[in-house]
Amino acid sequence: MMRTFASDNAAPAHPDILAAIVAANQGHAVSYGADEWSKRAIASFERLLGEGIDVYFTFNGTGANVTALASVLRPYEAVITPASAHLNTDECGALERFSGSKILAVETADGKLRPADLERWLHSSKEEHHVQPRAISISQSTEYGDVYGVDELRDLCSFAHRQGLLVHMDGARISNAVAALDCPIAVATRDAGVDVLTFGGTKNGLLFGDAIVYFDPSLHDGAARFVRKQAMQLASKMRYIAAQFEALLQDDLWLHNARKANAMAKRLEDRVRSIPGVRITRPVTCNALFATLPSHAVSEAQQAFFFYVFDQARSEVRWMTTYETTDRDIAAFGAALERALKESTNRQ
Amino acid sequence: MMRTFASDNAAPAHPDILAAIVAANQGHAVSYGADEWSKRAIASFERLLGEGIDVYFTFNGTGANVTALASVLRPYEAVITPASAHLNTDECGALERFSGSKILAVETADGKLRPADLERWLHSSKEEHHVQPRAISISQSTEYGDVYGVDELRDLCSFAHRQGLLVHMDGARISNAVAALDCPIAVATRDAGVDVLTFGGTKNGLLFGDAIVYFDPSLHDGAARFVRKQAMQLASKMRYIAAQFEALLQDDLWLHNARKANAMAKRLEDRVRSIPGVRITRPVTCNALFATLPSHAVSEAQQAFFFYVFDQARSEVRWMTTYETTDRDIAAFGAALERALKESTNRQ
Amino acid sequence: MMRTFASDNAAPAHPDILAAIVAANQGHAVSYGADEWSKRAIASFERLLGEGIDVYFTFNGTGANVTALASVLRPYEAVITPASAHLNTDECGALERFSGSKILAVETADGKLRPADLERWLHSSKEEHHVQPRAISISQSTEYGDVYGVDELRDLCSFAHRQGLLVHMDGARISNAVAALDCPIAVATRDAGVDVLTFGGTKNGLLFGDAIVYFDPSLHDGAARFVRKQAMQLASKMRYIAAQFEALLQDDLWLHNARKANAMAKRLEDRVRSIPGVRITRPVTCNALFATLPSHAVSEAQQAFFFYVFDQARSEVRWMTTYETTDRDIAAFGAALERALKESTNRQ
Amino acid sequence: MMRTFASDNAAPAHPDILAAIVAANQGHAVSYGADEWSKRAIASFERLLGEGIDVYFTFNGTGANVTALASVLRPYEAVITPASAHLNTDECGALERFSGSKILAVETADGKLRPADLERWLHSSKEEHHVQPRAISISQSTEYGDVYGVDELRDLCSFAHRQGLLVHMDGARISNAVAALDCPIAVATRDAGVDVLTFGGTKNGLLFGDAIVYFDPSLHDGAARFVRKQAMQLASKMRYIAAQFEALLQDDLWLHNARKANAMAKRLEDRVRSIPGVRITRPVTCNALFATLPSHAVSEAQQAFFFYVFDQARSEVRWMTTYETTDRDIAAFGAALERALKESTNRQ
Repeated sequence: MMRTFASDNAAPAHPDILAAIVAANQGHAVSYGADEWSKRAIASFERLLGEGIDVYFTFNGTGANVTALASVLRPYEAVITPASAHLNTDECGALERFSGSKILAVETADGKLRPADLERWLHSSKEEHHVQPRAISISQSTEYGDVYGVDELRDLCSFAHRQGLLVHMDGARISNAVAALDCPIAVATRDAGVDVLTFGGTKNGLLFGDAIVYFDPSLHDGAARFVRKQAMQLASKMRYIAAQFEALLQDDLWLHNARKANAMAKRLEDRVRSIPGVRITRPVTCNALFATLPSHAVSEAQQAFFFYVFDQARSEVRWMTTYETTDRDIAAFGAALERALKESTNRQ
Repeated sequence: MMRTFASDNAAPAHPDILAAIVAANQGHAVSYGADEWSKRAIASFERLLGEGIDVYFTFNGTGANVTALASVLRPYEAVITPASAHLNTDECGALERFSGSKILAVETADGKLRPADLERWLHSSKEEHHVQPRAISISQSTEYGDVYGVDELRDLCSFAHRQGLLVHMDGARISNAVAALDCPIAVATRDAGVDVLTFGGTKNGLLFGDAIVYFDPSLHDGAARFVRKQAMQLASKMRYIAAQFEALLQDDLWLHNARKANAMAKRLEDRVRSIPGVRITRPVTCNALFATLPSHAVSEAQQAFFFYVFDQARSEVRWMTTYETTDRDIAAFGAALERALKESTNRQ
Repeated sequence: MMRTFASDNAAPAHPDILAAIVAANQGHAVSYGADEWSKRAIASFERLLGEGIDVYFTFNGTGANVTALASVLRPYEAVITPASAHLNTDECGALERFSGSKILAVETADGKLRPADLERWLHSSKEEHHVQPRAISISQSTEYGDVYGVDELRDLCSFAHRQGLLVHMDGARISNAVAALDCPIAVATRDAGVDVLTFGGTKNGLLFGDAIVYFDPSLHDGAARFVRKQAMQLASKMRYIAAQFEALLQDDLWLHNARKANAMAKRLEDRVRSIPGVRITRPVTCNALFATLPSHAVSEAQQAFFFYVFDQARSEVRWMTTYETTDRDIAAFGAALERALKESTNRQ
Repeated sequence: MMRTFASDNAAPAHPDILAAIVAANQGHAVSYGADEWSKRAIASFERLLGEGIDVYFTFNGTGANVTALASVLRPYEAVITPASAHLNTDECGALERFSGSKILAVETADGKLRPADLERWLHSSKEEHHVQPRAISISQSTEYGDVYGVDELRDLCSFAHRQGLLVHMDGARISNAVAALDCPIAVATRDAGVDVLTFGGTKNGLLFGDAIVYFDPSLHDGAARFVRKQAMQLASKMRYIAAQFEALLQDDLWLHNARKANAMAKRLEDRVRSIPGVRITRPVTCNALFATLPSHAVSEAQQAFFFYVFDQARSEVRWMTTYETTDRDIAAFGAALERALKESTNRQ
């Protein structure tokens, strides 16, 4: 059984999630979301996030982001996002190709968008030569494993709204962010001014599946379900996504998973931080740890536990923990890392 | 536990498929298809269909069709298909929006494309005012539950190739077709001249998942994996699709499921054909039964076993059987139908 | 100086149009439509079609059609059109690629859409599997040189509106249609229920240029000018389109040109109708004449005056007249045609 | 007669160009580019740029850029360009919407792309999560009125080619650049390694019209003419674009116009550089002059001669000269500017 710190999508599904799928595999179910599991899962989201929301399940996070945005943007309208955003760098141009909308990417030091980052785009807002900014998209937690604080979110959303910009939150790891913020999820999303949330499932213990939550359904004006279908994201056997989400929201499993993952990142940090040659490069707020280490040690350590190099030039690596990372993993990896660094130092 | 004749996607997943998912849920796996399950599933496809193929898993059938075609068409190139094709009528314009390519839809009596149907499009083939036909797309089995015979396929493919047209087979129900044809699947696909096959899983016992098989990988010139990602069809936890396909291809489960579904359609036909007021309207070759019945009886019968009205105007309904349709279903539905027809007759 | 009956776009620009361009070539002008010529040309359209309209100039008819529709359709919304429509057959899939919207093409005998043609698309209107019909597009005059009568238009528009469908009129040859209908243009467009009109210039004496007229600007909700730019249809030196339209609308030049073209088609019909071997196949209402003649005679006659074969299979040709077709052209072509038919008969 | 320094597209067409249009307005011409003017204009391009090229006329520069790139990029392939590029900022997202391709925008100090700017995009080049860089697009002259030197071009093209990237040159002002470089145009384009050139006409004395020149026609693999049509850029009365280009290439009119425009920018610089409050901010290489001046003076000066504010925040304005800027314009504007600055200084 391979163990890694590669990504939260390298981990197996949580046993409760799998059990929910097994339990759902009984009898016939109406397809495309008119089933009982979907109703219950949506009701669970309403309990979590409040009444009046509009929920759409999708196959994956890219599908959720693109469906969410394409439902509210016209093709000449643009979305402003940090250059580091998954939407901008890791979705192979899906938004541009599917919806035609341009992404206005802002270089940031830490992957967080701030009101000042938006200003350069706001002058052009009535000229037909320029795409029209209509939304911002922020990742929570960020691609660097940090979070926007609740006040930061409020300020950013409020600034965005004053400029006529909607706020999309790419919450592929919203659970980890909420665990880190230690506040009710509604406070960190809806109440802070987020208009549409991608609620990640795949990276938090599901086999597959993400959800889009519109806090104000009028924003997409009836478009979302058509866009989801046209975006090839409508599951026919919807119960198998819905049952997973029902289980994920049951007894706060989503939060327990995220807390566990975050806690393991802290333990990993504790374990490796003092290893000579390892330098932690970013705050460890959620379930990602970024560090530089000598490039000779990287491939050595990858043999023991696979992980990704995040920035080749700087020899910066990323270690991701998950809900099922164990203390044993950390101990073993810590040891392997020490060995690798010792060897690589010797070799040099 | 609801029972229906609504669709093959209303049925639960096959127990062996579910077991494969449960078994796959161990340890970490490299994401995006570099895992062991993917390798084994692709090897299974190679055993089934021959060496030298290129296989891509997708979330669903719409995603498979669009990815398959968008990888070989340039946006000014068109695909010719029967007007009844799923691609044309049931995918909410996904191909047009995602790839830009036009669908040239041919009205047919029976959902089957024939060489003569292509001729009207071939005159225009060098004029820049017209989209350029580059592929045909045929559904096997057809949307009406019938199949193309092997000779028909050979003739059609050969004609298409002579005109410079590629052949895409939408095999959402290829298993049912092969069960009906009772020949090796390679004979009915690759050997007959099909260039790219969508191999349906979702409708034949999977929880979700379809596969694209290129018989000549050079056709897409390296595009397919980028297009799949851009089409939002790349699963991060690929093992859960791959494990299902591995199980489906194991010991010909795909074929057993399809044979069972087809056989149950025959039994259903036997049961209902003599019920007064029911008229079977199309050949029962695979797992779909089309019939007209008085519209008053339709809603009555739908109470017992839900099914879809296919053509409102003609009061034509569609009953689909699946690998897990039981003799008891058929008996119960037959009785319900008789009751409904008696009541509706009485009421009139 | 070559003479043809090929198309109205083979003719030179009208001298008054050219003179307007020459006159406009003085001094500097604000670009992109904020110039004086544009203001005057729009005012001319308002005098012609009434107050409260929204006018956008484009480079050509394809650009006008696509901009007009893409400004009112969301990409999952479809437009219903006769299969013969320029939009469907002669624009190389521009609408699909640019806007993503599907064209639902209806086979018709005469290129005219009727309420009954729409019915098959109206059942599906709330299902997310299907594109959602949102507009119809009709060519006036039709691609076969005929016109919709005012009552026909009223009935069709009124039916469409009741179904929630907007009406786009592709008026590449609206001038010829109005000349044939012999009624005020507003009666045959705005008052009849047309929502957005493409007013053709290129085929009626301009060097280049078409216009889009929204009778209710709220329909495009501010989108049109952005869509025009994104569709690459925004001329920087707009005065050169606007000045042409100003001249075209001056003293009803548009109508005089169209009347002349239509009258010449009648004279051509009179001249050729009795030539043995020539059979007029469609009503000659505007400036197109369709006829079958022996295929051997076609290439012979094309030597004298070039024209297009419209339907190879039936040996049906199209002769188009323009505002500057002369009696001499008709006499010479009539004679050439007689010779060609005689020779081809002799040869056979 | 208004005079401005607003843009080269505010100027009237050159008399010789207009004369060519008038001369072309005789008799019938085959449409869509099969006419004699098109043949001659293409032959002129061959004389200028060498044999073996492929030339396509379009309506405008945006259309030319998008057609040029969309003919060589697949939708998951990206183009790298300076953030300041017209393609990126002034075409309302036309490339993204029409072709689906992503633009990878690089912040630069001076609007020039250098090999080092490409490096960050080259690591990702085989990962399906990322769009695949396939081309670079550079503006010559740049949006800031400067030029790439021939050696710079050679180095950049050669670096790009080694990375498998094609080179597109947005030559909306290629004439001004060549005039500044004072070398044969082939040396600064084809010989330097440019693969496809947009040759601007609209900004150098045409009424409208740009051209795409492929130096190696095999690059677009037959796609360009279909893409041009689908991009709504195929003029039916092509002679009116072709005749203009024929005249523009006749006796080096393109170069004379550009030299004149460039020379006038120098004179303008000479006139205004010593006016207190005016600071020239960028090298004056072609026909654009950038300067900062107190914001109070801007609107004052704009009354006399309209021009655009380029960067509101820095109060940086742009003055563009053209082939028909006069010494009198410069004298009058210099005087107006002095007045405006004096008044604004007094007011403060």
